[in-house]
Amino acid sequence: MGTLLVRGGTVVSASGRTEADVLVDGERIVAVLQPGSTLLGHDLASSVDTVVDATGKYVIPGGIDAHTHMELPFGGTNASDTFETGTTAAAWGGTTSIIDFAVQKTGEAVETGLAAWHEKAGGNCAVDYGFHQIIGGVDEQSLKAMETLVDEGITSYKLFMAYPGVFYSDDAQILKAMQKAADLGLMTMMHAENGPAIDVLAEQLYNQGKTTPYFHGIARAWQLEEEATHRAIMLADLTGAPLYVVHVSAKQAVEQLAAARDRGKNVFGETCPQYLYLSLEEQLGATGDPTWGDFEGAKWVCSTPLRSRAEGHQDAMWQGLRTNDLQMVSTDHCPFCMKDQKELGRGDFRAIPNGIGSIEHRMDLLYQGVVTGEITLERWVELTSTTPARMFGLYGTKGVIAPGADADIVVYDPAGHTSIGLEKTHHMNMDHSAWEGFEIDGHVDVVISRGDVLVSDGAFHGRAGHGRFLKRGLTQYLT
Amino acid sequence: MGTLLVRGGTVVSASGRTEADVLVDGERIVAVLQPGSTLLGHDLASSVDTVVDATGKYVIPGGIDAHTHMELPFGGTNASDTFETGTTAAAWGGTTSIIDFAVQKTGEAVETGLAAWHEKAGGNCAVDYGFHQIIGGVDEQSLKAMETLVDEGITSYKLFMAYPGVFYSDDAQILKAMQKAADLGLMTMMHAENGPAIDVLAEQLYNQGKTTPYFHGIARAWQLEEEATHRAIMLADLTGAPLYVVHVSAKQAVEQLAAARDRGKNVFGETCPQYLYLSLEEQLGATGDPTWGDFEGAKWVCSTPLRSRAEGHQDAMWQGLRTNDLQMVSTDHCPFCMKDQKELGRGDFRAIPNGIGSIEHRMDLLYQGVVTGEITLERWVELTSTTPARMFGLYGTKGVIAPGADADIVVYDPAGHTSIGLEKTHHMNMDHSAWEGFEIDGHVDVVISRGDVLVSDGAFHGRAGHGRFLKRGLTQYLT
Amino acid sequence: MGTLLVRGGTVVSASGRTEADVLVDGERIVAVLQPGSTLLGHDLASSVDTVVDATGKYVIPGGIDAHTHMELPFGGTNASDTFETGTTAAAWGGTTSIIDFAVQKTGEAVETGLAAWHEKAGGNCAVDYGFHQIIGGVDEQSLKAMETLVDEGITSYKLFMAYPGVFYSDDAQILKAMQKAADLGLMTMMHAENGPAIDVLAEQLYNQGKTTPYFHGIARAWQLEEEATHRAIMLADLTGAPLYVVHVSAKQAVEQLAAARDRGKNVFGETCPQYLYLSLEEQLGATGDPTWGDFEGAKWVCSTPLRSRAEGHQDAMWQGLRTNDLQMVSTDHCPFCMKDQKELGRGDFRAIPNGIGSIEHRMDLLYQGVVTGEITLERWVELTSTTPARMFGLYGTKGVIAPGADADIVVYDPAGHTSIGLEKTHHMNMDHSAWEGFEIDGHVDVVISRGDVLVSDGAFHGRAGHGRFLKRGLTQYLT
Amino acid sequence: MGTLLVRGGTVVSASGRTEADVLVDGERIVAVLQPGSTLLGHDLASSVDTVVDATGKYVIPGGIDAHTHMELPFGGTNASDTFETGTTAAAWGGTTSIIDFAVQKTGEAVETGLAAWHEKAGGNCAVDYGFHQIIGGVDEQSLKAMETLVDEGITSYKLFMAYPGVFYSDDAQILKAMQKAADLGLMTMMHAENGPAIDVLAEQLYNQGKTTPYFHGIARAWQLEEEATHRAIMLADLTGAPLYVVHVSAKQAVEQLAAARDRGKNVFGETCPQYLYLSLEEQLGATGDPTWGDFEGAKWVCSTPLRSRAEGHQDAMWQGLRTNDLQMVSTDHCPFCMKDQKELGRGDFRAIPNGIGSIEHRMDLLYQGVVTGEITLERWVELTSTTPARMFGLYGTKGVIAPGADADIVVYDPAGHTSIGLEKTHHMNMDHSAWEGFEIDGHVDVVISRGDVLVSDGAFHGRAGHGRFLKRGLTQYLT
Repeated sequence: MGTLLVRGGTVVSASGRTEADVLVDGERIVAVLQPGSTLLGHDLASSVDTVVDATGKYVIPGGIDAHTHMELPFGGTNASDTFETGTTAAAWGGTTSIIDFAVQKTGEAVETGLAAWHEKAGGNCAVDYGFHQIIGGVDEQSLKAMETLVDEGITSYKLFMAYPGVFYSDDAQILKAMQKAADLGLMTMMHAENGPAIDVLAEQLYNQGKTTPYFHGIARAWQLEEEATHRAIMLADLTGAPLYVVHVSAKQAVEQLAAARDRGKNVFGETCPQYLYLSLEEQLGATGDPTWGDFEGAKWVCSTPLRSRAEGHQDAMWQGLRTNDLQMVSTDHCPFCMKDQKELGRGDFRAIPNGIGSIEHRMDLLYQGVVTGEITLERWVELTSTTPARMFGLYGTKGVIAPGADADIVVYDPAGHTSIGLEKTHHMNMDHSAWEGFEIDGHVDVVISRGDVLVSDGAFHGRAGHGRFLKRGLTQYLT
Repeated sequence: MGTLLVRGGTVVSASGRTEADVLVDGERIVAVLQPGSTLLGHDLASSVDTVVDATGKYVIPGGIDAHTHMELPFGGTNASDTFETGTTAAAWGGTTSIIDFAVQKTGEAVETGLAAWHEKAGGNCAVDYGFHQIIGGVDEQSLKAMETLVDEGITSYKLFMAYPGVFYSDDAQILKAMQKAADLGLMTMMHAENGPAIDVLAEQLYNQGKTTPYFHGIARAWQLEEEATHRAIMLADLTGAPLYVVHVSAKQAVEQLAAARDRGKNVFGETCPQYLYLSLEEQLGATGDPTWGDFEGAKWVCSTPLRSRAEGHQDAMWQGLRTNDLQMVSTDHCPFCMKDQKELGRGDFRAIPNGIGSIEHRMDLLYQGVVTGEITLERWVELTSTTPARMFGLYGTKGVIAPGADADIVVYDPAGHTSIGLEKTHHMNMDHSAWEGFEIDGHVDVVISRGDVLVSDGAFHGRAGHGRFLKRGLTQYLT
Repeated sequence: MGTLLVRGGTVVSASGRTEADVLVDGERIVAVLQPGSTLLGHDLASSVDTVVDATGKYVIPGGIDAHTHMELPFGGTNASDTFETGTTAAAWGGTTSIIDFAVQKTGEAVETGLAAWHEKAGGNCAVDYGFHQIIGGVDEQSLKAMETLVDEGITSYKLFMAYPGVFYSDDAQILKAMQKAADLGLMTMMHAENGPAIDVLAEQLYNQGKTTPYFHGIARAWQLEEEATHRAIMLADLTGAPLYVVHVSAKQAVEQLAAARDRGKNVFGETCPQYLYLSLEEQLGATGDPTWGDFEGAKWVCSTPLRSRAEGHQDAMWQGLRTNDLQMVSTDHCPFCMKDQKELGRGDFRAIPNGIGSIEHRMDLLYQGVVTGEITLERWVELTSTTPARMFGLYGTKGVIAPGADADIVVYDPAGHTSIGLEKTHHMNMDHSAWEGFEIDGHVDVVISRGDVLVSDGAFHGRAGHGRFLKRGLTQYLT
Repeated sequence: MGTLLVRGGTVVSASGRTEADVLVDGERIVAVLQPGSTLLGHDLASSVDTVVDATGKYVIPGGIDAHTHMELPFGGTNASDTFETGTTAAAWGGTTSIIDFAVQKTGEAVETGLAAWHEKAGGNCAVDYGFHQIIGGVDEQSLKAMETLVDEGITSYKLFMAYPGVFYSDDAQILKAMQKAADLGLMTMMHAENGPAIDVLAEQLYNQGKTTPYFHGIARAWQLEEEATHRAIMLADLTGAPLYVVHVSAKQAVEQLAAARDRGKNVFGETCPQYLYLSLEEQLGATGDPTWGDFEGAKWVCSTPLRSRAEGHQDAMWQGLRTNDLQMVSTDHCPFCMKDQKELGRGDFRAIPNGIGSIEHRMDLLYQGVVTGEITLERWVELTSTTPARMFGLYGTKGVIAPGADADIVVYDPAGHTSIGLEKTHHMNMDHSAWEGFEIDGHVDVVISRGDVLVSDGAFHGRAGHGRFLKRGLTQYLT
C-alpha cells in the first residue's frame, strides 16, 4: 500500500461531474483536488507512490452489488461461484463491494446460518463483502435473533413470499418480522411472488406435459408478482417498516411501487440486468417454439422470471430506473452450471436451479444504457454505487469519491470496448454465459479497492483475502 | 481574496455527509480534504490567508434561489426590493445566487426587456445573479428572439397561463413557444393557473361585495391550478419540451405532476416556503371572518394563493418534496410594502400587488423542516442548492462543494437560533414581514461567495457589485 | 291465491318510473298496464279478486337480500334467527327473496353441508330462498363437488381469506377454485380480509389487555381489507373468473374495485347498511373510551368491521353505490343475541360472535338514502332488487315488475314513517337492535310474494312454508 | 292509427329480457302483457287493428340518436341531409327520435338560431325530433337567453373548445355558461378538443405540404382531446354543472372521464360508431401512404378524428361502453357529399367539411357489437335508447317499453342480415358511404313511431311531417 493519485479524469457522482484528481493515502481517499494536484504551491503528484492516469476517463466510486448468492444451496446443488471466484469476477467487472445473503434455513438458528456464511466468506474474498440475513423461518427464536443483527453490522434481512416449504413466509410471519424490523430499523427485503399460486400453475403445466424451461416463466405470471408486491407494500404500510423489493421484473409491479411512493411510502425496488435486456422470448428461440433448443433456455431460468418483451416489461424497467421508482440495479448473481446443475431440471422445469450469473458484467451492462441514452452518466453511478451504499448503510465509507471514504475507485474508459462471453471476459465459475455475445461500448480500465489496485492493464493483481467484512449501519435512504 | 480554509465541519451534499475541510484559492474551491488539512505531510492549514472554523456545523453549497422578482413592475407599482437590497438580504440568509426574471412586456422586444434587466442588476448585486426570460407576448418576433437566449446564458423562459392582458399566453402561443424551446433545449417555466376563469370568479366576488384579501384565494380555486398544470403537461408532452411548473401550491397539482412523472415525463415542480407553512386560514384571522383585521391579510396575497390547511395542501407540498414530485424550493420573492403598495387593493383584492418576500429566510425555513423531520439534511441541500443548479445549468460551478466549483459556501449552525421578524433578522426592503414570529432552530453562520466572506460574526462584509451575471448552460436535470 | 291488481301506483324500475297498474294472475305478473286498468274497452279492474291501492305510493319489485346467515354455526353458537324467524322479518321489511349461505365445513363433504341447509330451510321459510355454497375446504373432492352446483341451482360459492382454521382458503386453494368456477360459470364470492395478519394483530392486542369490542375493529385494519381485495382481484384476473367481494367497508377496497372495473374486469362489490350508517366511533361511546359501556359495543361487532367515520369510509360507500363501483346492498344478516351469544366474548373481543342483524330494515335504511339525496329512487330499486337478481341469475323471475315475473311486489309509502327499535318494528330473533333509534321517512306498506299478500295494514298474513327454493341460473350481470 | 299488438317477441330492456306482447292504443303503449295476449279471460289479440308478429325477434324501444346535424352550415356548405332525408334514413335504421343541434351563430341571437331550426325541421321530419342548443357566442345576451331554454323544452346546450373564430368559447365563457347551466339544470355538452392548439398544428402541417385528408387526424392529436376533456371536467367541477362530452375518440379521454366518475362526478361521455369501427389507418390506405387514393380519405374526415388502431383507441371505446365510462352511442351524423362538398378541401385538409353520415346504421352497427361479444343485448338497448332518453329528459315517453310510453317500437331480427353500402341500404342524401361493405348479422324488421308503422316488409310507410317536436324535461340520469 502507500499513496496513490488518480489523475486527469472526470469524477462522476450521482449529481454531476467534476474534473478532479483523487488522492489516496493507505486505504482511504484523503482529498479530491483540482486537476494538476497542486495546492497552495505544494506539488502533491510528485509525492505519491503510484499514479493512475485517468485522462479522458471516468473516475467513479467502486460498484456495489447488493444482491449476490455465492455458494447458495438451492434445489439440491450449490451456486457454482465460491466467494473467491465470485468476488474475483466482481473485481474484474468494477464491483468492489458485494452484499451476499446469509441463509437461515428453516429449522436452523439464525446464528448458525450466519456463522456458516462468515465461515464461507472469511479470508476468501477479493473485494469487501457484507451480508443481508435471510430469515427462512419466522418464529419466536428467529424474531429474537433479529435483535442482534444490527450489532453484527447486518442491517437488512430478507423474506420470501415464494418457495413454499423452502424459504416461504406466510403473511402472519411477514407481519411479525416487519413489526420487529420497524422497531430495530432493519430494512425488510422481499422476494415478492405469490409462491403458493405459482406452485399450482407449475404443477398444472407439468401435468400437461409442458416441461421445458420456457414454462418456468409461464407459471410465474406477472399477476403473481404484482399481487405479492402490493401485499408486501400493504403489510409494510401497516407496520411502518421500510420495504425493499428485490429483482423486480414486471411493469405492473413497478406501477405498484410507484403508487406507494406517490403516497410518500418508504418503498424501494431493485431490478437486475437480465430484466433490462433479456426476455421470455429468448426462451422461445427463433422459431417461437417452447420446446426449442434442447434445454438451451435453462440458462435464463431465474426468479422472478424473464418477461415478455411484447408486453413491454423491459421498457418499463428502464423507465422505472429513470423515474426513481426503481432505485438500484443489483445482479441477483446466482450462478449454476448447465452440466450437473441446470440439467437437474431436464424434463421438469421446476427442478432447474434458478439463477443467472452477472456479477462481472453489471457495471458494463448498465453503462451500455448510458451509451444508448436510457440513463444519464450520473444515474449510472447512482444506481450502481451511491444508492446501494445509502440504501444499505455504507455511504461515506462506500459509494462516493470523497475524503474519508474507502479508496474504492474504478477508472472507466468510455473509449474502450468490452465483449462479453465465455471465451472473452468471463471469470465466473460457470460453463456458459447468459450474456454471450453482448458488446459494450466502454471498458473497466482500473479497479482499486481500499487503495490496492486489483485490476489494471488487463491483469488481475488482487487476491482472495483482501476483502473485508463490512459492518453496515442503518439505511441512509429513508425520506 | 486569497486562500481560505473551511475547517472542521461536516460537508453535506445531496447524497450524504462527510467530515472534511474545504480549501479555497481565489474564487474557487481547489480541494475537499481530510479533516486536519494535512496531505502527504503537507500542512495546508498553515498556508491559508483565512481560516473559517466550522466545527460542529454544516458546510453546504451556497443557496440558489431560482425564482425572484426584484424591481418587478406589477399592478401599477414595482416590487420593493432593488437588486441591491434583495441580494443583500439573500446573502444574509445564505443564498449566494439568484435567478431573476427579465420581463418582456407585451408589445416590447425581448431584447429590450432583457437589456433593461441587465441595466437594473448590473453592478448592483451582492451575490451572483442569472436571468430567466419572461416572454410576455409570444409572436414571430419573440419566437425568433428565443433563439439567441442560449448564447446569452439564459436557458429558461417563462410563460403565464394567468393574468390575461398582462403576461398571459393562450394555448396556441404556448404550443409555439414550447416547440421552439424543445428545439433549442430551453426549459419552459410555467405559471399554471387558468387566468381567464380566475378573472371571471374574481369579478363575480367583487361584484358581490367580497372584496377583502381573503377572497383573492377563493377566486384562485385549486381546480384552476390543477387544470392549468395538466394542460401545460399535455402541451409539453405534445412538443417534447421539458416543463417546470413554478410555485405549486395545490395538492391536486402535485398529483398531476406525479402522474406525468410516473409516465416518465420530464416534468418538474417548484414550491415556495409560503405554501409549506402558511394557509388561507391565516387570512381569516382568529375569528374565521373574511373581513378580519382591516386589510391585514393583504401581506399574504400571492399567486398561486395560500390554500386551505383543512384540505391538506401544506402536507401535500412537504410530501411532494420528499417524493421528488416537487424538486425545488424557491421563494417567488416578490416584495411589496403595505404602505402605498399592497394598499392599492384596499377595497378590491384584485388590485393588491401579488407577492410575498422570503428571500432572506428560505434556507432557514427549509432547515426547520429538517428539524421537524419533514425532510432529511441531505434533501435540504438538494432542494435549495444542488437541484436548482442542475435544473438551470449551473451545476459544477454552483450547487456543489467540489474542486473547480465557485467557492459559494455556507456554514450553517444547527446549534444556533434565528428569530424572524421586522425588528429582528429582516433586511428586505419591506415594511412588514409575512413571517413575523417564526422561530428557527438553526442559524446561517458564515456566508462565502466566490471566496469572499459576505457574512460572518453577525455582520455583513459584502457589497453591491460583488455579484456577477451567471451565463447558464442547458439544464442538467433531464432523465 | 287468484287474481290481484296493484292499482294507482308509480312503478319504479332501475331505469325510471311509470304510472301503471300491475295485474297478477296466480303467482305471476301477467301485465303492466295503463292506470285505470282498462284495455281496448275491457275493464280488468272489476274482474280481479283483490285490489291493492297504491295511490301515491311506489310499486317496486320485492327486495332480494343476497347475503344472509340463518342458523349459522359460528364461534361455538348459532346465528339466532331460524329460517322461519329470519324470513318472516325479511317479509316485514319488504324483502321477498333471500340467498343464504350453505356451509361446507372443513372436513365435511360439500353435499353434506348443502343437504343440511336444505333440511334447515325446507318448509320453514316465509319468503323464497336460494343458496350460495360456502366452500370451507378446497380440495379435490370439493372441487369435484362444485361441478354439480349449477344443476342444483346454486350458481355462486364463497371463499374466505379470513378465519384461518375455520373457513380460510389459502391462495393455492383460491386459485384452484377460481379456475374451476371460471370453467363452470359460477360466481366467486369472497370474504376479502387477510385473516392470518388479523389474527396476529388481534392476539397482540389481547395480550396488551386491549380486550373490549372496540379492538375488534382495530385488529381488522383497512389495510388488510384493501390487501385481500386486491389479491382476490389479481387471482381472478389470472383465471378469468368473475369476482364478487362481499361486505366491503373500506374506502381503499372500493378504490381497488374501481381500478379493476376501470380496466374492464368483471369485478363486483357489495356493501351493507352498517357500513353506510355506522362507524367504529359508535364503539367508543360518547367519551371516546374504548372500554366504554360495559360491552355495549359488542352489538356492532361484525366482519369486516365498522370503520372510522373520520377516515371517510361511510361517505366512500355511498359514493361507491352512486358510481356503481359497488353494485348491491345486502345485509350480511348474521344475528346473535347479547345474552349467551355476544357475551361469549366478554373479556376477549376475539370470542364475540361476528354479526349484525338487519334483514328487516335493509329496504327502509336504503330508502332513507333516497330521502337524504345519497341515491336516486331508481338506484334504490336497482341496488336492492334488480341487480341482486341479475347478479345471481334470478332476473326475469325476480327483480323486475314485468309480465312473466313472479308477483313479488312491494308497495312502499313515501309518506309513511318507520321507527326502528326492539320495541317497535323489530321481528328478528334478537334481544337487541343494532339500529335502535333509527327513524325512516318512508314505510313498507304492502308486501306480496308470488301473488300472496304477506304484509298489509300493518299485519302479517304470511306463513312458514310459503317460501320456495330458488334454483338460480348463471349470473346475468357480466359485461 | 288505432290499436296494434306486437306479439310473440322478446322484449329487451336495459336490465333484462322478457317474453311479452306489447299492446298499443293510438300513439301510446297501454300494456305489456303475457304472451298470448289474454288477460283474465279477455282475448286482447282479437280486438286490435293491427298485429305485428315478432316471433323469434327482439322488441326494443325505438332508437334515439342524440347527436345529429341536419342542414348544418359548416365550412361554406351545408350538411347534405335535410330533416326530411335524414329522419327518413333514421327511420329505416330503427331510430325513431333524434336530437339535432340548433345553432346560435356568433353575433346572432340564440332565439334567432333556434327559430331557424324550428323552421327547418317543422313539418319535415319522419320521426320525432328535439333540439340541443349550440351557444356559439357566450355573452350577456346569450346567457340570458339560456334561461328560457328549459321552457322551450331544450334542456341541453353545447359549447365548443374547438373551432376558434367559429363556434369556439374560451374558458371564461365556458365557466360563465356552466354556472348558468348549473343554476338552470341544463346539461352542458362539450366538444372537447383544444382548438387553438389544433389550428397551430394544422397550419404547420399545411405549410409543410402535408395537405391530404390523413393529416386532419395528425393535427388533431389525442393529447389535445385528452387535455380539453380534463379542462371541461375541472370547469364543471368548479361550477357543479353536470357535463356530457360528445364524440369521445381518444382512450386517454376515456381515462379522464373514468377518473372523474370514480370521484363521483356527474360526467358523461358519448362515442360514435366511427370511433368503434374505423381508424386513422383507413386514411392511409393499403400502402400506408398518406397521399393515398386521390382524396378518398376525405370521406372519413370528422372531428374528433379517427384515431390510430395501433394505439388501441377503438378497443378503449368498446371497453368504455362496457364499463359505463361511456354511456351512449350517437352518430354525430353530419353528412357531406364528396362532390362539391368534401372536395372543397382538396389540397387543404383544413377545408374539408367535417362529418360522417351514419344515422341509418347506428342500431345495426351497435348490434354487430352484440354479435361479436363486445356488449350484451341489454347494453345495446341501454346505449342506443334508454340512456339517451334518461340523459336528455325523455324517459317515460321514450326509451322504454312500458305503459304510457310513446309507441316507438323496433322489431329487430337477429336471424336477418343487413349489407351496408350506397347501392344497398343507404337512404341518406350522400353520394358515398363511410360504411361501404359493412355486413351486419341482424336486421331492422319493423319500425313503429307513436303507433304508426313506418317500416315493414322492407318498405317505407312513413311521411315527412309525422315527426313532432319533443319538449324535453331535465336530465334524469344524475346520481
